[in-house]
Amino acid sequence: MNYGIAIFPSKKVQDEANSYRKRYDPHYALIPPHITMKEAFEADENEIETKIIPELRKIANETAPFSFGVYKVSSFSPVTNTIYLKVEPSDEIFELNDKLHSETLPGEKDFAFVPHITIAQKLSDEEFSDVFGSLSMLKFDLQDDVDRFQLLYQLENGAWSVYETFRLGGE
Amino acid sequence: MNYGIAIFPSKKVQDEANSYRKRYDPHYALIPPHITMKEAFEADENEIETKIIPELRKIANETAPFSFGVYKVSSFSPVTNTIYLKVEPSDEIFELNDKLHSETLPGEKDFAFVPHITIAQKLSDEEFSDVFGSLSMLKFDLQDDVDRFQLLYQLENGAWSVYETFRLGGE
Repeated sequence: MNYGIAIFPSKKVQDEANSYRKRYDPHYALIPPHITMKEAFEADENEIETKIIPELRKIANETAPFSFGVYKVSSFSPVTNTIYLKVEPSDEIFELNDKLHSETLPGEKDFAFVPHITIAQKLSDEEFSDVFGSLSMLKFDLQDDVDRFQLLYQLENGAWSVYETFRLGGE
Repeated sequence: MNYGIAIFPSKKVQDEANSYRKRYDPHYALIPPHITMKEAFEADENEIETKIIPELRKIANETAPFSFGVYKVSSFSPVTNTIYLKVEPSDEIFELNDKLHSETLPGEKDFAFVPHITIAQKLSDEEFSDVFGSLSMLKFDLQDDVDRFQLLYQLENGAWSVYETFRLGGE
């Protein structure tokens, strides 16, 4: 089964992201707006229950809640035509990302972590120029608090279903 | 904000339900296949954190994990044209539903609880006859285990985002 780990921002930020995603992101219907903390990885149910979930609980307990800001749009161009709300980096989110990629957990970290909320992807080059041209002019002033992350699994239709919540800073 | 409480069945059952939902359920993109345990209710974030989540934790701790079977399709016709996978009733799921509708939690229980996984809704009368005519011939033999329920909130686009997981039988 495919698993992944994400942070879902508050309703306010999700609603803002969805106002763009509904037009520009073909994954709009597969998962709510999110910050990917760990890309899809393969695991079986036994491994998830006996090894991965206990480790994620430990990581969550050791991690204090933190905040982030969203002020502008950025893109992964020319690598991909993905456009995203840039999550203003904080030490905490990088530390959490590091912990989620320790050797005790499956899954590789293929590239440097850029915390972001995708709002457009799989655009043609022409669409990308148009859309990024207008979105990159926007200014945002969103502040959000993170006090949890979620373990999800992927259904056959590509959609993601939340399996478990991990509260930061313990219960 | 609108909140609701649902049980998400295993991937196996969700995939089966989605094979029908993608054709017949306009809510396909808004939430993965689920058993509604408490209909949408209004609450503010403070009430959720200080009153409702502690109560849900208590309920989850007091409730043992249970199993259910899915053997056939049924419908709410003539009240609505909703078609669903019938969740073979067990005492446990009714007890959990009762606890989730105690006076300590907001939200009313408007009608008798019929545990189900919706696979078709908002069909015209003619579509309903056709679709229910063929689906009601199907036989299923699905067994599933429930060891958690989830608190969700609703986004402006109507989609549901999971806020927190509650494991049955405590940690």
